[in-house]
Amino acid sequence: MKIGILGYGNLGRGIECAVKQNDDMELAAVFTRRNPDTVKILTEGVKVYPVSDILEHKDEIDVLILCGGSATDLPVQTPEYAKYFNVIDSFDTHARIPEHFNNVNKAATESGHTALISCGWDPGMFSLNRLYANAILPQGNDYTFWGKGVSQGHSDAIRRVEGVKDGKQYTIPVEAALEAVRNGENPELTTRQKHIRECFVVAEEGADLNKIEETIKNMPNYFADYDTTVHFISEEELKANHSGIPHGGFVFRSGITGWNGEHKHIIEYSLKLDSNPEFTSSVIVAYARAINRLHKEGVNGCKTVFDIAPAYLSKASGEELRAHLL
Amino acid sequence: MKIGILGYGNLGRGIECAVKQNDDMELAAVFTRRNPDTVKILTEGVKVYPVSDILEHKDEIDVLILCGGSATDLPVQTPEYAKYFNVIDSFDTHARIPEHFNNVNKAATESGHTALISCGWDPGMFSLNRLYANAILPQGNDYTFWGKGVSQGHSDAIRRVEGVKDGKQYTIPVEAALEAVRNGENPELTTRQKHIRECFVVAEEGADLNKIEETIKNMPNYFADYDTTVHFISEEELKANHSGIPHGGFVFRSGITGWNGEHKHIIEYSLKLDSNPEFTSSVIVAYARAINRLHKEGVNGCKTVFDIAPAYLSKASGEELRAHLL
Repeated sequence: MKIGILGYGNLGRGIECAVKQNDDMELAAVFTRRNPDTVKILTEGVKVYPVSDILEHKDEIDVLILCGGSATDLPVQTPEYAKYFNVIDSFDTHARIPEHFNNVNKAATESGHTALISCGWDPGMFSLNRLYANAILPQGNDYTFWGKGVSQGHSDAIRRVEGVKDGKQYTIPVEAALEAVRNGENPELTTRQKHIRECFVVAEEGADLNKIEETIKNMPNYFADYDTTVHFISEEELKANHSGIPHGGFVFRSGITGWNGEHKHIIEYSLKLDSNPEFTSSVIVAYARAINRLHKEGVNGCKTVFDIAPAYLSKASGEELRAHLL
Repeated sequence: MKIGILGYGNLGRGIECAVKQNDDMELAAVFTRRNPDTVKILTEGVKVYPVSDILEHKDEIDVLILCGGSATDLPVQTPEYAKYFNVIDSFDTHARIPEHFNNVNKAATESGHTALISCGWDPGMFSLNRLYANAILPQGNDYTFWGKGVSQGHSDAIRRVEGVKDGKQYTIPVEAALEAVRNGENPELTTRQKHIRECFVVAEEGADLNKIEETIKNMPNYFADYDTTVHFISEEELKANHSGIPHGGFVFRSGITGWNGEHKHIIEYSLKLDSNPEFTSSVIVAYARAINRLHKEGVNGCKTVFDIAPAYLSKASGEELRAHLL
């Protein structure tokens, strides 16, 4: 199957790497809004085209993967390209998923294409684990923790503070909260009790460090509700020790069974990821296989990870899966 | 939807408890090979019938859950009852799944019923996690650990030793092995390095304790390849502290991504269960909902957990799932 990539940032590059790991796929083309001559990709022999030419390559692509941002790119791009391609995106603005789904579903249904939105790990694998665990243990509590990992939004917020040259923010789950959940204590946790925020900041020369630290720690929505630590480091140190994009997290369901709810059960799913965009890409590429198959079976419209039987993700046959993985 | 239970042991009782937790289901009937007058169930107003009368109740049952054993019951029962009912079993003899699948698939396809085999947590939720994780990270290693929990087969083996009155065996993952996997070390682990076995034994009066201990520790297949500890305790202590049926375990995928495999990722799924049969039952009951729906949609034949889209397990609509769990 042939994969197209629209948008060659961290996610697009991750898709390219994931395609290389799957021998039933190949990268057909990369499309960019930049000048294609300035975009250097890794795969030999594959071309980069301006996005304006994308429809000329309609018949060379089985699934087009949209690697734009959720704020402004995907709400426009996914419904638009679902008119011409089978598409997948990683739309992650949870509150706007229903609206986005309806727009994409309309376009895909009318054009006879197959689309998948909100693919990745949250939304994505974490959502799946919430669904399975809720269906299995209807009486119980859900807990999701993120990290340890880099939050792009919070790092951006730091960099907007006056006197800050550069910075990275890590979201870290509170170990005591994880343990309480694991022990079946069903704690009620405040925002502060669930995560801490650790900031590594490069200040501009002569900047007021105390003022920067106070501004960060009291920033509403981003930091004020958390225990936040701020470390001032050099630009070299930031580059050497904080240029990765790790992430991860934990999804728990803590539930009870028995005639009188006398037995406790803990379901825990966790991810520890060296590269957030590459893992997200790996999930997307597995689902691209599923979308391609569903399309060939005549299934159209918009789907989410909830709608796709797991066997569609694997290149192994049903027979092989039953013999080796069941 | 109406559930029938065939076989009222630990699993059948667990199904009964799980049905109570799901308000879109009710228990229709329990069928037993014992004298029905001797089987006392928990649900008021529901009758226990002899299994010989089961076909008289064909039209009162949407899904029949087979709660027999994998060694001799299910290989016969599941294909037989798939002729008349939608059925689910928890067949867990991994090596014989392909053969069992074919037998059940033939019966269910010919009769126009929907069947699901090998449902529970292993096979079941663990299998699902192996499949998802393998599809996402095609380059990597799988690890499955079981416990801490009671192994029925090993407890039975202890009880067959001369001089043993009663006993329980716990399978326990080796903590150092779990940590090595979690750290992405991709260890090659021997049987002995993965699990330890802890036995609690009630000896008959005057029995040779040293001989019992040596016999257990050197038992081929069951204990010889493991570090095994044997504790002799009183009958009262066994009853007071070891009459539960806890279990659980861990499924890991440790994989790499990136153009040159430069980034590591760990996917971990774990279960900590106070009651093995009640959790297995809870999984089965969620899948009963899926099987009932698939049957109404006209999907027949034998399925496994790999073939079922997650949304079918939940009583919430697609719209609700997208809004609240995605």
